[in-house]
Amino acid sequence: MRLSRYFLPILKENPREAEIVSHRLMLRAGMIRQQAAGSFSWLPLGKRVLDKVCRIIREEQNRAGGQEILMPTIQSADLWIESGRYNDYGKEMLRIRDRQDRAMLYGPTNEEMVTDIFRAYVKSYKDLPLNLYHIQWKFRDEVRPRFGVMRSREFLMKDAYSFDLDFEGARAAYNRMFVAYLRTFERMGLKAIPMRAETGPIGGDLSHEFIILASTGESEVFCHSDFLDLPVPGPDVNFEDDAEIAGIVERWTAPYAATDEMHDEAAWADVPEGKRLSARGIEVGHIFHFGTKYSKPMKATVTGPDGQEHFVSMGSYGIGPSRLAAAIIEASHDEAGIIWPQSVAPFDIALINMKAGDSECDRICEELYAGLTAAGCEVLYDDTEGRAGAKFATADLIGLPWQVIVGPRGVAAGEVEVKNRATGARETMPVGAVVGRFGARP
Amino acid sequence: MRLSRYFLPILKENPREAEIVSHRLMLRAGMIRQQAAGSFSWLPLGKRVLDKVCRIIREEQNRAGGQEILMPTIQSADLWIESGRYNDYGKEMLRIRDRQDRAMLYGPTNEEMVTDIFRAYVKSYKDLPLNLYHIQWKFRDEVRPRFGVMRSREFLMKDAYSFDLDFEGARAAYNRMFVAYLRTFERMGLKAIPMRAETGPIGGDLSHEFIILASTGESEVFCHSDFLDLPVPGPDVNFEDDAEIAGIVERWTAPYAATDEMHDEAAWADVPEGKRLSARGIEVGHIFHFGTKYSKPMKATVTGPDGQEHFVSMGSYGIGPSRLAAAIIEASHDEAGIIWPQSVAPFDIALINMKAGDSECDRICEELYAGLTAAGCEVLYDDTEGRAGAKFATADLIGLPWQVIVGPRGVAAGEVEVKNRATGARETMPVGAVVGRFGARP
Repeated sequence: MRLSRYFLPILKENPREAEIVSHRLMLRAGMIRQQAAGSFSWLPLGKRVLDKVCRIIREEQNRAGGQEILMPTIQSADLWIESGRYNDYGKEMLRIRDRQDRAMLYGPTNEEMVTDIFRAYVKSYKDLPLNLYHIQWKFRDEVRPRFGVMRSREFLMKDAYSFDLDFEGARAAYNRMFVAYLRTFERMGLKAIPMRAETGPIGGDLSHEFIILASTGESEVFCHSDFLDLPVPGPDVNFEDDAEIAGIVERWTAPYAATDEMHDEAAWADVPEGKRLSARGIEVGHIFHFGTKYSKPMKATVTGPDGQEHFVSMGSYGIGPSRLAAAIIEASHDEAGIIWPQSVAPFDIALINMKAGDSECDRICEELYAGLTAAGCEVLYDDTEGRAGAKFATADLIGLPWQVIVGPRGVAAGEVEVKNRATGARETMPVGAVVGRFGARP
Repeated sequence: MRLSRYFLPILKENPREAEIVSHRLMLRAGMIRQQAAGSFSWLPLGKRVLDKVCRIIREEQNRAGGQEILMPTIQSADLWIESGRYNDYGKEMLRIRDRQDRAMLYGPTNEEMVTDIFRAYVKSYKDLPLNLYHIQWKFRDEVRPRFGVMRSREFLMKDAYSFDLDFEGARAAYNRMFVAYLRTFERMGLKAIPMRAETGPIGGDLSHEFIILASTGESEVFCHSDFLDLPVPGPDVNFEDDAEIAGIVERWTAPYAATDEMHDEAAWADVPEGKRLSARGIEVGHIFHFGTKYSKPMKATVTGPDGQEHFVSMGSYGIGPSRLAAAIIEASHDEAGIIWPQSVAPFDIALINMKAGDSECDRICEELYAGLTAAGCEVLYDDTEGRAGAKFATADLIGLPWQVIVGPRGVAAGEVEVKNRATGARETMPVGAVVGRFGARP
């Protein structure tokens, strides 16, 4: 993509309304625009990040056996009356009357609807386990939306729902999502730590929040520093092997970890002093087993191997991709701007023409742009007429992993400079070596 | 994907509520489920089709210079008051009050919001032309939603918006979208014919509906049969060459074509008798130049080369991917079910194990499943225990382009049968030839 044609409205000033760094940087980098309280448009650069975040989520959900569907945003109130949540859910639910005066709502979550889908079609334990997920916009009418897309009213959510014959099956389903989440966050360059969360009236220990460590995090968290070295399972992890998956969950839940609310001073005291890590964290995912909470009132049953009807045992598993885009920035930025992990970077390389209009600089840039693109790299080519200093600042701000810098002096010597955005390391190399350097993909 | 694990709720009975064939087949094939009046969930098979439709749309929008953004579904009423449409838009607009009693609405379209984005950032003609599009859910509260996803209340829409300095620029932008639409529908296996549409108070000739011919179409259309042979531009068409693009538009608007409303008996009489094609059609896209209709009231201006402020000249360009999934079925089905064009088929191949449990059939199927998948084919492997007849019926119903049929008798002879869903042609071939037959992708 040529920057001269790309809609990238960089802001020079720090927007006053932004209280946190991700909000500030997303506005400044032209990723998002606020449309109303807690409501944002995603501009081209932001949309690319959101798509990459969603792709990773999708790949890991599919790998773990999830099947993607897509439920509508507007729901009938009837299902929520059936589950008993229509009155419980307070003012956060956006309630709507259609032209026939039917009670509708903008879905804040989809337990009811997916249970309705399930009970319409699935009748036998033979069709289990089943995990259905979708990535769809949700609306929660918060009193005070803030922090940009980190806590907006309209937000994108991946919500998965598992259906099993009994608790043992549900636990295995829960474990698969647990491991899928470890992989998902790892692939985005995040260090996510699962922490036990409230289970409410359901009880049990099957509720975890995934918290990433970021100095600007919203809440305080406490964990054993062993988490930092625990290996995340690779792509070859066998989701069909319940024991293998349970083993991973066991290892990832053994060391102490707790959010502020769940913190236990006594258990914390048992962690060796040099191993106590107390830090700021941001919740990026939540998985939850709720058993028959919805299947009972909504009569979602299957016939078991015993010939009897059983209420299915369910769980739900959420990740907010729009929130995640901001959380990644919270975890990865510096004074100059965003530092994208490769996997979610909107482009791989910023190709910077220090002197657009200079025939040699232009020629080398065109050559590199074509060559890198052909090699499978996603390149944002700054072919604009601005000053070199402003171009460097923009490249640092939008945080692409690599900068390939083409200037008159280097070109005269047949060389360009390559800068790693994360480390700041610079390397001078012959023009002819650049495409090979970044290979099939950098 | 193994059918034994795939959530594909096939219906044996014809659903009574379905009035048209696409609605009936989408319900029967387990593609969609109705959630409320005019509101549908997309089940796994349907979601795959919707994704492929969107991907083609996106690729062609990008090729023609469009840039993808994503605007929220919920809009503030303020923008619509500013444009003057808040009161004009009748009961089809879903109006909402949030907890602060602010007037909101579920976007039925996005001219206002995109104009707001534009005016916030773009100040100079040097940043034009600009085309921003998004693929987002819309809601129109129709009195009588029907025909499944063909006319639903919540529906997916790709809406693009072009911004230009003057009419000449806007016309070139319009032409690019015209050609992009020709390519988009062609890639989906559709014969789409652009027909002049009402321009209302704007006037001029820059409004076209793209109509596909389908015997079950919603309206009558009239056109010169030369359209059937007009070549659609290939992927190498040069969208940067305004003259080339204008030439294509000229060729595609020269022969007579009109919907019922725009039909002109006198002009029709001038079409040679043997060339008159009157048929049923379905609208699948609409492109529209509306000049300064929104830029004026909303004060969206740029500085021109003359140093003066100019209201930008705009157009909008819509395709409904959810509607399109149904329209493709209307255009391509038979008694037995759907016949997917390759490009939007949910899977490429139905691999049918006629006798699951038979060790030789199982072994050959596993071998083919692995081999075809490795070769890049998307395979739905029917490994269930059902009768062969029911499996054939399901494969025909869901309409994958190819069936690879593995039965005990063939396997004993080292052979399988390959059936083309569209033509019904069958071919017997050695097991070892199958993967090669479908190559990198069938």
